[in-house]
Amino acid sequence: MKKLINKPEDVVKEALAGMAAVHADLINVDIEQQIIVRKDAPVKNKVGVISGGGSGHEPMHGGYVGYGMLDAACPGAVFTSPVPDQMLAATRAVNGGAGVLHIVKNYTGDVMNFEMAAELAAAEDIEVVSIVTNDDVAVQDSLYTAGRRGVGVTVLLEKIVGALAETGAPLAQVADMARQVNNHGRSMGMALTACTVPAAGKPTFELGEDEMEIGIGIHGEPGRRRAKLVGAAEIAETLTTPIIDDLELKAGEQVLAMVNGMGGTPLIELYIIFNELERILKGKSISITRSLVGNYITSLEMAGCSITLIRLNDELIKYWDAPVHTPALRWGR
Amino acid sequence: MKKLINKPEDVVKEALAGMAAVHADLINVDIEQQIIVRKDAPVKNKVGVISGGGSGHEPMHGGYVGYGMLDAACPGAVFTSPVPDQMLAATRAVNGGAGVLHIVKNYTGDVMNFEMAAELAAAEDIEVVSIVTNDDVAVQDSLYTAGRRGVGVTVLLEKIVGALAETGAPLAQVADMARQVNNHGRSMGMALTACTVPAAGKPTFELGEDEMEIGIGIHGEPGRRRAKLVGAAEIAETLTTPIIDDLELKAGEQVLAMVNGMGGTPLIELYIIFNELERILKGKSISITRSLVGNYITSLEMAGCSITLIRLNDELIKYWDAPVHTPALRWGR
Repeated sequence: MKKLINKPEDVVKEALAGMAAVHADLINVDIEQQIIVRKDAPVKNKVGVISGGGSGHEPMHGGYVGYGMLDAACPGAVFTSPVPDQMLAATRAVNGGAGVLHIVKNYTGDVMNFEMAAELAAAEDIEVVSIVTNDDVAVQDSLYTAGRRGVGVTVLLEKIVGALAETGAPLAQVADMARQVNNHGRSMGMALTACTVPAAGKPTFELGEDEMEIGIGIHGEPGRRRAKLVGAAEIAETLTTPIIDDLELKAGEQVLAMVNGMGGTPLIELYIIFNELERILKGKSISITRSLVGNYITSLEMAGCSITLIRLNDELIKYWDAPVHTPALRWGR
Repeated sequence: MKKLINKPEDVVKEALAGMAAVHADLINVDIEQQIIVRKDAPVKNKVGVISGGGSGHEPMHGGYVGYGMLDAACPGAVFTSPVPDQMLAATRAVNGGAGVLHIVKNYTGDVMNFEMAAELAAAEDIEVVSIVTNDDVAVQDSLYTAGRRGVGVTVLLEKIVGALAETGAPLAQVADMARQVNNHGRSMGMALTACTVPAAGKPTFELGEDEMEIGIGIHGEPGRRRAKLVGAAEIAETLTTPIIDDLELKAGEQVLAMVNGMGGTPLIELYIIFNELERILKGKSISITRSLVGNYITSLEMAGCSITLIRLNDELIKYWDAPVHTPALRWGR
């Protein structure tokens, strides 16, 4: 295992300490409890928006805490759900009196723990609505999930919903927007290499020198199929076609497109995939109106990529374009 | 070789096409000539600021073209200097009548070609000043360079100098600022793994499962020494001590600190290195006043990191904080 770490058991806390030092202007980090909270939380009369999940997917979710996006994030151990107590503490910390939205990726552990946290919050008279993202078209029911997994859409949803919450919209409306974005978004990913969880010390799976894994989630869990490595054009086609079909995207529609790196893939390759994605969509007269290319939801040092498309309308574009100021996404201020 | 590419010979042009599609609001890309130019270039009466070098270091330099940073970038083939004709075309494209600054990393090929481009520009009555960055404390005279290599400082210098140029400052002043930043900045890097140039198809060097290379440049060229892999604390110490010594940083001084990933290292590890860097500097009463953590000057998919420190003063902080709007760095607008 070759990593820039000290002891495996200290990885998350030391990374949080680093994050706290780099972004002291934006976030407060409770390193013991593992909670990242927006500096000015709770914002009075604003819906608090929180998310969380295993570590190892950076910059998700902690990198999205700040103005116009999340109010708090609670990272678990690497590839392990945070516990209900963390989520409850985050919920309390961002409760400005207008209720709290929990954004939960559909992985069994996360869903269960967020449910328990929501019950605990309700017992303290904090109104919580949970929405579960499930955008991964690769598989129905997989290693860690019943139903579709929640992946790339989660990041884009956090941006759009965070912008709406920033306007002072009520909890029901913020939750409706979250459901809308999830319904109109789909993703699919692939891996060229596995990754190694520090505490495990060995790769989560093995891939031959000429193989790739199609339809991975974000933990290196098995996907649709293992296949012989092909070129970028064919890979982009393999990932994009099921998304277009499932979303029933039609000529004349417009999308927000993300080409996401899994952590170990250089930007030059992600731009090549984007070039292929654009060609495919142009061939179907679908316009990429907004886009994002880079490492946004990762699996440690895994090489590979995922593609996410969200059907856009004017309202979603407005909230996508609204100012955001977080460690990992920033524009407009 | 496992990469998200089509034919190795098409990597740079296809990545440029992807970049052009993603960032059409910011840049114009001449894919044939391999030149990335700021959308509103030439800006009348503003010093044009350009840089260039081999591809494979993304987001450098193309990702830094835009308001408040570079006016143009000319990427060569992977790990290969661009040619003088490219540099000349970029120089022409950004000449708004106030002259052009060439920012050149000290690699023999780049220096030679930029010199020739400057002569060609002079023959067309375009005033050019070249400044050469040479911040790498790891080695004197290495595989591709006489003297120190130009590495991480180049990125930070492009930001600071670009902000000054945006104010309408004259060429001599912009060049002076560039020299000042270079003189007050130093870097050192290390690799956990090698990387593979697409056209070569095999790794640039071999490293054992328990080895690391200390003092690499940005092409996987040999460094100071090969050593047994150690923990993040010791790695940070090994990289930081020569920088502090060489800069003669003293208690009470303040720095801009960059922890840069080489392309294949996940963000969670870079935050751990930053945490160690902060501990080391705090121990010497040196303050990190500004910082940047992420993949900014890379070597394809190499795993590893580099640390860059620049001694700050109020003027440098002012230009660092000034708005910037490029594909890879954005704040304040």
